[in-house]
Amino acid sequence: MSKSKQTPGNADPSSLSLLAEVDAPTDLHGLDDEQLQQVAQEMRTYIIDTIGEIGGHFGANLGTCELAVALHSLLDSPRDKILWDVGHQAYPHKILTGRREQLSTIRKYDGLAPFCSIFESEHDIMGAGHASTSVGYAVGLKEAMRKGIGEDGKVAAVIGDGALTGGVAYEAMHAAGGLQTPIVIVLNDNGMSISPNVGALSRYFNRARLNRRLYHAREGVEDRLTKLPLGLGKRIERLGPEIKSAIKAYWAPGLLFEELDLAYMGVIDGHDVHALREALREAFAADRPVVVHIHTVKGKGFAPAEEGGLEGMEKWHAAKPNSIVNGQPAASKPVPVKESDSPESIAPERLESPPPPSAPPQYTQVFADAIVAEAERDSRVVGITAAMAGGTGLQKLADEVPDQYYDVGIAEQNAVLLASGLALQGAKPVCGIYSTFLQRAYDQIIHDVCLQSLDVTFAMDRAGLVGDDGPTHHGAFDVSYFRPIPNVVVMAPRDEAMLVHMLRTAIAHDGPAALRYPRGAAEGVELPVVPEEISIGTGELLASGERVALLGYGYGVSVALQAAEILAGHDLAPTVADARFAKPLDTELLERLAIGHDLVVTIEENVLPGGFGSAVLEHLEDAFGDHPQERARILRIGLPDRYVTHGKPSLLREEVGLTGESVAERVLVALRRREPALR
Amino acid sequence: MSKSKQTPGNADPSSLSLLAEVDAPTDLHGLDDEQLQQVAQEMRTYIIDTIGEIGGHFGANLGTCELAVALHSLLDSPRDKILWDVGHQAYPHKILTGRREQLSTIRKYDGLAPFCSIFESEHDIMGAGHASTSVGYAVGLKEAMRKGIGEDGKVAAVIGDGALTGGVAYEAMHAAGGLQTPIVIVLNDNGMSISPNVGALSRYFNRARLNRRLYHAREGVEDRLTKLPLGLGKRIERLGPEIKSAIKAYWAPGLLFEELDLAYMGVIDGHDVHALREALREAFAADRPVVVHIHTVKGKGFAPAEEGGLEGMEKWHAAKPNSIVNGQPAASKPVPVKESDSPESIAPERLESPPPPSAPPQYTQVFADAIVAEAERDSRVVGITAAMAGGTGLQKLADEVPDQYYDVGIAEQNAVLLASGLALQGAKPVCGIYSTFLQRAYDQIIHDVCLQSLDVTFAMDRAGLVGDDGPTHHGAFDVSYFRPIPNVVVMAPRDEAMLVHMLRTAIAHDGPAALRYPRGAAEGVELPVVPEEISIGTGELLASGERVALLGYGYGVSVALQAAEILAGHDLAPTVADARFAKPLDTELLERLAIGHDLVVTIEENVLPGGFGSAVLEHLEDAFGDHPQERARILRIGLPDRYVTHGKPSLLREEVGLTGESVAERVLVALRRREPALR
Repeated sequence: MSKSKQTPGNADPSSLSLLAEVDAPTDLHGLDDEQLQQVAQEMRTYIIDTIGEIGGHFGANLGTCELAVALHSLLDSPRDKILWDVGHQAYPHKILTGRREQLSTIRKYDGLAPFCSIFESEHDIMGAGHASTSVGYAVGLKEAMRKGIGEDGKVAAVIGDGALTGGVAYEAMHAAGGLQTPIVIVLNDNGMSISPNVGALSRYFNRARLNRRLYHAREGVEDRLTKLPLGLGKRIERLGPEIKSAIKAYWAPGLLFEELDLAYMGVIDGHDVHALREALREAFAADRPVVVHIHTVKGKGFAPAEEGGLEGMEKWHAAKPNSIVNGQPAASKPVPVKESDSPESIAPERLESPPPPSAPPQYTQVFADAIVAEAERDSRVVGITAAMAGGTGLQKLADEVPDQYYDVGIAEQNAVLLASGLALQGAKPVCGIYSTFLQRAYDQIIHDVCLQSLDVTFAMDRAGLVGDDGPTHHGAFDVSYFRPIPNVVVMAPRDEAMLVHMLRTAIAHDGPAALRYPRGAAEGVELPVVPEEISIGTGELLASGERVALLGYGYGVSVALQAAEILAGHDLAPTVADARFAKPLDTELLERLAIGHDLVVTIEENVLPGGFGSAVLEHLEDAFGDHPQERARILRIGLPDRYVTHGKPSLLREEVGLTGESVAERVLVALRRREPALR
Repeated sequence: MSKSKQTPGNADPSSLSLLAEVDAPTDLHGLDDEQLQQVAQEMRTYIIDTIGEIGGHFGANLGTCELAVALHSLLDSPRDKILWDVGHQAYPHKILTGRREQLSTIRKYDGLAPFCSIFESEHDIMGAGHASTSVGYAVGLKEAMRKGIGEDGKVAAVIGDGALTGGVAYEAMHAAGGLQTPIVIVLNDNGMSISPNVGALSRYFNRARLNRRLYHAREGVEDRLTKLPLGLGKRIERLGPEIKSAIKAYWAPGLLFEELDLAYMGVIDGHDVHALREALREAFAADRPVVVHIHTVKGKGFAPAEEGGLEGMEKWHAAKPNSIVNGQPAASKPVPVKESDSPESIAPERLESPPPPSAPPQYTQVFADAIVAEAERDSRVVGITAAMAGGTGLQKLADEVPDQYYDVGIAEQNAVLLASGLALQGAKPVCGIYSTFLQRAYDQIIHDVCLQSLDVTFAMDRAGLVGDDGPTHHGAFDVSYFRPIPNVVVMAPRDEAMLVHMLRTAIAHDGPAALRYPRGAAEGVELPVVPEEISIGTGELLASGERVALLGYGYGVSVALQAAEILAGHDLAPTVADARFAKPLDTELLERLAIGHDLVVTIEENVLPGGFGSAVLEHLEDAFGDHPQERARILRIGLPDRYVTHGKPSLLREEVGLTGESVAERVLVALRRREPALR
């Protein structure tokens, strides 16, 4: 029986009587089921108190306290490998593997990584941050072991039911079944991704979960079958094992997996350490791939999540800083701040609570309002999200124009194919997908949308540095990966007003178009009453000056304006321009800037290789090929050619030099060095 | 009953008595089942004769003659939409939709497209060339219709059992089931992709196919259940519908689909027009998504394929030009030619028949030999293919070192995840994936391999223009999409000897590395006895000259050498260099070239935006920022910023200017224009 129903208390030392002794997973090995259950509950309380104070992923971690304890009590990590898909639910694992005291630093600059990271702990077997990858890793690890490479051990992948909607998870299960790789796949089924799950699979799991009879092993079903009254049991027995299997199968929900040659056990109560250990022990002993289907509650032990239904769970996917006091929601909501202290990227609320009128809106909110307006104006406009209704703002479209909205689940590839099909029939689909997640649909963008020049809009939120979620979530590559693709328009707004105009422009344009905008608060400019199409491939001159032209792209324009202000204090009056488009370029504007200045500085929040600055350079070298001495030198400023860590965007931007101060300084240095060579 | 057992004859006019009258799909509407069966058979004969002469996709098309006839006889294309996954099997569809006479131009420059193309016919609803996309498109099309966008109609997606291993197909089926989109998914099950299928799904389909009882609808099973002897039928009836469903399910193979809320019909004989039409009529009448599982024979009606087992079918996936005469395999094999007249990319034979010793080997063959040698040398080396064992050459590894080889099926994402897991455990995986298909694993490359700097090698065959397969298969983007990624080494060999060295280098390098090499015959240089590691980030000077430096990357080096020869006739002695690495660059070599010449010409077979030339430009602009007048002008030559059509590589390279002649001419023009400005 589960003992996890007690309400959480404060994190006073007495409540950590067992957990305080666990400094490594081996410290669990001597404990009995009851003690392990207590460790799990102590950990839950500890998470509620700590994350409630500092903010971070929340609900999923409360759901995996017992599982983490059960796995580590049975296994010998890191020789045995526990893989946590995405890592939203890996806090208990981090606590049990020597990082308990550091939990309060998670997601902070120089603190614990937001997800698992191979650079942080030998117990973090793989890094992740995008969903659905753990099974593929597990197959690879175990297959290597089977070949005698590295030390042998057991391998478990913990994957959520939401992550199972991702095609790559299916590919990997298919491989595990095909190869009969002896791994254990723990299906952590809580009925939720960040948003409630969608699609046939979620209904399938619902059927399984709602059937209380399924909280028994299948063998029980078989037993009961042969004990049916009226002599029926014996008759069925006599029919042969095929019939018995058939009937048994009907009561057990694992057929989907068994058809893929994976053994199945379930459904197990994921908050009952004893039941978990029993099932896992059996699964690890089997010499074949086994799915252990466990049912957990997202937000377990925290009433507002656990009892708040799907909305409660979605709301408490993550907790904001200071949102929980003494195990209860804080009385007053913390005020959103412009700096992303608040983990808004991980707290995809239903956009019910706009910030106070004085603060600038979030870009996500502006996009949400704009797409709803576009959808209301034109019934061909359809918004598509891949399981990020809250994070992308598309929940507002779902609420207000539900007939022009799709959530395909964690399935970015299919989001883009769905858009392709819609566009072929004359719709105007808008894929609202984070820059980093759209990488997963790269082939569909090249092969399905752009090759056929279909009328699909890509609205990439979280372009640039996203902050606390770190390197797996930074939108650092999209300018570079979109630029090589023919037929596509690539643009970025400098502020929220331009975002509204660009969304209109992309939708109006009869062909593929991509726009990127940053995470967090916008600039605070006035929003247009009527969005206007802007002319494709045209930039905008914001200030006319001399010697230096600062040419921003997207967020880079803000940086350019800040740098210009600083440079004014050095008796420089730079020209400032907004490129607006990375493809096609405003070649006329570029050439004017190149002729009229000594130095053109491109500024973007994308890696430098192949980025916006590279586009500018390509054009100018071509255009001034015959008389290169007539053009300005190009200084490209952007993200470095390395993965950037996690932390507040302001800290990260300082680290990489994407600030007005840093740009101004580099300009001054460049001008000084250039003096002797000036014409 | 199927009537398609007759052997094919010659394509004399009399054998086209019915087909000759079919100029549009509507011409099928008045015909009865028997006549339609005859049309299908006439079409089969026509394909055998035509493709046997000109070469092209073969086996799969012989399998879909009856299906294409059945679908077009029931539907009203293009109002109703028939989507052919990949398009390997769409020749019958092309024949029936007004393109019969043009079939002999297929895959040729200016001829019919190799796959479906929306630019070619209103009956080609979607373009494709990469597998597993049709269901996603179908859902989008039908969902748009449900919203009243465009004209309403029926939608059918024809997808092979091999393509179902692709995760995006699963994502789309999941969406169809979730939304209950009323589309018909025809599962064209022939047990083959290009190579025999792998994994759990293929075993699942085998079980279904081998069970002759399944050639009946499920209702038959239910009927028979209640008629069981000894009164058992009535007893079972009394047990309730649940038990009956359970037993029924056991005999029917559709559970995998039904768990995803898709209705299932099957298995239907895919060469019986009557049975097909009956099943399809029922499926189109249902107001929900239906899977119609049909069994077809790859190479049906052509004995060497049909009766040749899996090897015969793989061999005849495509036919070479003049490989069939009078419906029989030609007596002597056509000699492979250097120019890719021979559709080697679509005829992935088991590398049994090496070309005569005088001809240079195919790059694929060189890679195959090299990876086998590496695997034999180091047991940690593991080759991974995604259903392209023949095409990538990895079949040789499968044959000779089977324990160090994986075929994951059409599942590029999982191929890379499997590699990640293997690498984490200390293995040295090599993903042998075509440049164009690797696009599908872009997120796994960025997020799983390179972020963690895992020791994975990407061996990209078919980099550059591939010829007859056209825009979906050209490897036009990989330099641009790899360059922005941190931590990865990006390189390309200029000839087969360098390919061997680079494969060794990539495997020896402790981190991610990617190498690309072209389709077709290599240069004919001597192969090294012992592969040598080359120093990462170093290029090679091939000829020292003056004024102009031709800097090639990969295939671009051949072009550079040709151009140099032509320029020699114009009293120019250009420097020629092989960059070898696009990342990291040989900056020392670059700067030397830039200082010592007026013009540096970069030559690559990749699109210009963000490509190798762009990398050179980025570095030189940075390096010579303070004294730009001291460096040479850069002229970047590569693939244009558009999708390139299909046809012989030599024609295509002429079209895009990637020839020695074209480069030489551009050099001369550039020098002439530059004369007045020369220092």
